[in-house]
Amino acid sequence: MTIQEKVNITMQRAGAAAEAWSQSAPELRARFLETIATEMEALDSILIQTAMQETNLDEARLTGERMRTTGQLRMYAAMLREGSWVEAAIDTAQEARPDLRKMYTALGPVAVFGASNFPLAYSTAGGDTASALAAGCPVVVKAHPAHPRTSMLVAGAIDRAADTCDVPTGVFQHLEDEGFDTGKYLVMHPQTRAVGFTGSLSGGMALHGYAQQRPDPIPVFAEMGSVNPMLVLTEAVSKRGEAIAQTCAGSITLGMGQFCTNPGLMMGIDCMGLRHFIEVLGQHIAQAKPAPMLHEGISRNYVEKLAQTLGSKGVYLAGQSDAGAPSAAVAWVSGDDFLQNPHLHEEVFGPFSLMVICKDAAQLAQALDALGGQLTCSLWAEPEDLQAMPELMSIARRKAGRIVLNGVPTGVAVAPAMTHGGPFPASTDSRFTAVGIHAVRRWVRPVSFQNFSDELLPDELKNKNLRGIWRLVNNSWTRDDI
Amino acid sequence: MTIQEKVNITMQRAGAAAEAWSQSAPELRARFLETIATEMEALDSILIQTAMQETNLDEARLTGERMRTTGQLRMYAAMLREGSWVEAAIDTAQEARPDLRKMYTALGPVAVFGASNFPLAYSTAGGDTASALAAGCPVVVKAHPAHPRTSMLVAGAIDRAADTCDVPTGVFQHLEDEGFDTGKYLVMHPQTRAVGFTGSLSGGMALHGYAQQRPDPIPVFAEMGSVNPMLVLTEAVSKRGEAIAQTCAGSITLGMGQFCTNPGLMMGIDCMGLRHFIEVLGQHIAQAKPAPMLHEGISRNYVEKLAQTLGSKGVYLAGQSDAGAPSAAVAWVSGDDFLQNPHLHEEVFGPFSLMVICKDAAQLAQALDALGGQLTCSLWAEPEDLQAMPELMSIARRKAGRIVLNGVPTGVAVAPAMTHGGPFPASTDSRFTAVGIHAVRRWVRPVSFQNFSDELLPDELKNKNLRGIWRLVNNSWTRDDI
Repeated sequence: MTIQEKVNITMQRAGAAAEAWSQSAPELRARFLETIATEMEALDSILIQTAMQETNLDEARLTGERMRTTGQLRMYAAMLREGSWVEAAIDTAQEARPDLRKMYTALGPVAVFGASNFPLAYSTAGGDTASALAAGCPVVVKAHPAHPRTSMLVAGAIDRAADTCDVPTGVFQHLEDEGFDTGKYLVMHPQTRAVGFTGSLSGGMALHGYAQQRPDPIPVFAEMGSVNPMLVLTEAVSKRGEAIAQTCAGSITLGMGQFCTNPGLMMGIDCMGLRHFIEVLGQHIAQAKPAPMLHEGISRNYVEKLAQTLGSKGVYLAGQSDAGAPSAAVAWVSGDDFLQNPHLHEEVFGPFSLMVICKDAAQLAQALDALGGQLTCSLWAEPEDLQAMPELMSIARRKAGRIVLNGVPTGVAVAPAMTHGGPFPASTDSRFTAVGIHAVRRWVRPVSFQNFSDELLPDELKNKNLRGIWRLVNNSWTRDDI
Repeated sequence: MTIQEKVNITMQRAGAAAEAWSQSAPELRARFLETIATEMEALDSILIQTAMQETNLDEARLTGERMRTTGQLRMYAAMLREGSWVEAAIDTAQEARPDLRKMYTALGPVAVFGASNFPLAYSTAGGDTASALAAGCPVVVKAHPAHPRTSMLVAGAIDRAADTCDVPTGVFQHLEDEGFDTGKYLVMHPQTRAVGFTGSLSGGMALHGYAQQRPDPIPVFAEMGSVNPMLVLTEAVSKRGEAIAQTCAGSITLGMGQFCTNPGLMMGIDCMGLRHFIEVLGQHIAQAKPAPMLHEGISRNYVEKLAQTLGSKGVYLAGQSDAGAPSAAVAWVSGDDFLQNPHLHEEVFGPFSLMVICKDAAQLAQALDALGGQLTCSLWAEPEDLQAMPELMSIARRKAGRIVLNGVPTGVAVAPAMTHGGPFPASTDSRFTAVGIHAVRRWVRPVSFQNFSDELLPDELKNKNLRGIWRLVNNSWTRDDI
């Protein structure tokens, strides 16, 4: 069987399951997600050991990541049981207006491409899969080539959960990676209604391009990472530069810098405090204990890009850990040299950060404004800093999905108020988040029912509020019956 | 000055106004929208007369359409004053989780391309403009070439309202149409952050294509209309066929069929009742009073496509109004011939509808399923019809943004529960509506604030709920303070 035939059979099966899954009871979907979590836990150390072998991540990190993954699955289960996520809106008939009721409905089969750097939380049973299943969409996951056995183990857990819960065939399917074409055929298949991707800019844009070439373009939510600028402002760095340096060093080297929210750029205005900060930061980084990266390709890419950056005009090393595995490093460059070299604006995926030393506030604003869209922008600031440069907050708000004050961007809380996404190229559609309950909105669309009798309406829209959910009734939020 | 230079200056000005408008007080935006409404009313009969001359629409229709337009403007003003539309979410700090708060923020300058068939309600001060201004986005409208003077008059009203309310320069701008390139440059300009379009499939897809060619793709919401299938089911047509025929005839010929929700296709299962229905419908259509269409191009296009359709294999005329202006018409075709000729699945924009007579329920489902995405799908049905063919409702839900039961699709209520949009090719993104308060979501993205002190947060996210809005606080909806 060719790859295309295999994709075709898979997507046909997903398409055949779409109606039943879209109309399935919230309780069934909730139990399925919870059972996936239980099955992942039941894999116990086999899962952790396999992921350790395939990704070089350590046991503590992977145990934590599994907790994050099962936590996400249970969060969507709770969301389904609570039920308000369908955003029911009801306008009862008035003179010239018929009765009109609206709620979210599933888009249909979703193709999910997991991330290499989150073998559990953003892969086979990760955030995209969990949110799409919760939405009522069948999911087809393409295993990530960097952790095929981990992916297979998790897929087995999902399959067992599907059996236990009597979930229809085709609601979840797993495809082994057989190279680039698997992804292309998945995105181009007529049954595919949306795509979730976490990874590189080139990977995300390739899938986005295929989706646009279809006779019927489909939405692609690609989270493509970013360089996550961190502003280290004058008063803050003068008052508590050493403490900030320590915290930043931890964020830069966390998990060998292999997070999409890793702070790859820092910016500040030249002053004694900032120079001292760089020195202390360099010392911390020099003491970092390097570890192997996720896989050979990422490692090679990091070493190459790091060498390129360090070899760029005006870039000076401020600290580097001992060689062995790829080493952590920090460097600095003047605002002038930074602005003249757009390559320095790009992500070096790994435990590296570049400090841009600007000559004044105007140049700092200019340097920040020169960047593309970002997942995050962080500001180390005292109140005086922000009063002196209010434009920085404006630029941050325009550039980023999340603004962090006096903190580091790594550590993406799974919470309703999280935005994990941002203006292009951080993601392909800044109007959605990939983390938190609202991530489900990527996979649903509103459908309105006009002039329906009560018994023909979905439960969520009947006069009696059977599920006790929040509904916008005649433009007022209520949990009452009509 | 070349067109490109003109667009460049315009978009630079819009970009320069983006921050101020995005951060402007809700009360200012609300007053601006209301004042636009007042200024449109103050134009009195000049506006109506001008639009009549340019569009051939009659006084009653245009007076009604102005009421719809001013109603929309005031609806968004009310939404801004109420304030909950920003979807504030707050997660207060817990053990491992920092304080995190999220709300919608404006995308930036929006380019609006109005519709020829709604010279007021979906043009210069129409739904796209009103929702984008409400969202906090500067708007640049390209005048529709079919009603340039109407557009200019409305732009003048908006400019006067901007003066009265001290709205910053660049928040609203109007470009005369200077051909296709104006649109292309608008969509391609780096300052443009989103596009709103209402019109043809070819027009919408051209703009969508430009947006995807940009180095930074931007969202295009294009509402491209549809053929709006109307199922006339067996029990219903037997019991009340004549009444249904009369209602349908009204919907088919309303405004010379120039609505994007015009029912261009009907479908039913062959039976005496359906044959009689077609006959009666044909008689009603024969008595329709044809009127001139919006403009020469639309008229010519209608006459050509109608002739093509009527000349297609197996298509039989059931009734046609007297010649003169383009005539209204209905025809019928067998399910077999319909399924073999995809051209018959396409919209004939004007007062025409084609009845597909299917041989049985299976063919009816097949015919409906053969269609692309739709704004609406209507069913004339008795309970027995739906019990006998539950699959029809499933297909309708999959195909359409709005499902109408025992009613016609024309008449799009401006209400929160309205979905005006639908799967491709009805729109480029089925996840949004172009009508109702939720249309604002096309122009906003969430932004999260992490670890902010209260005084640095936007009003909507402070501990004290200053605006009294609904907020999702620690995953529960409340209007209380924290």
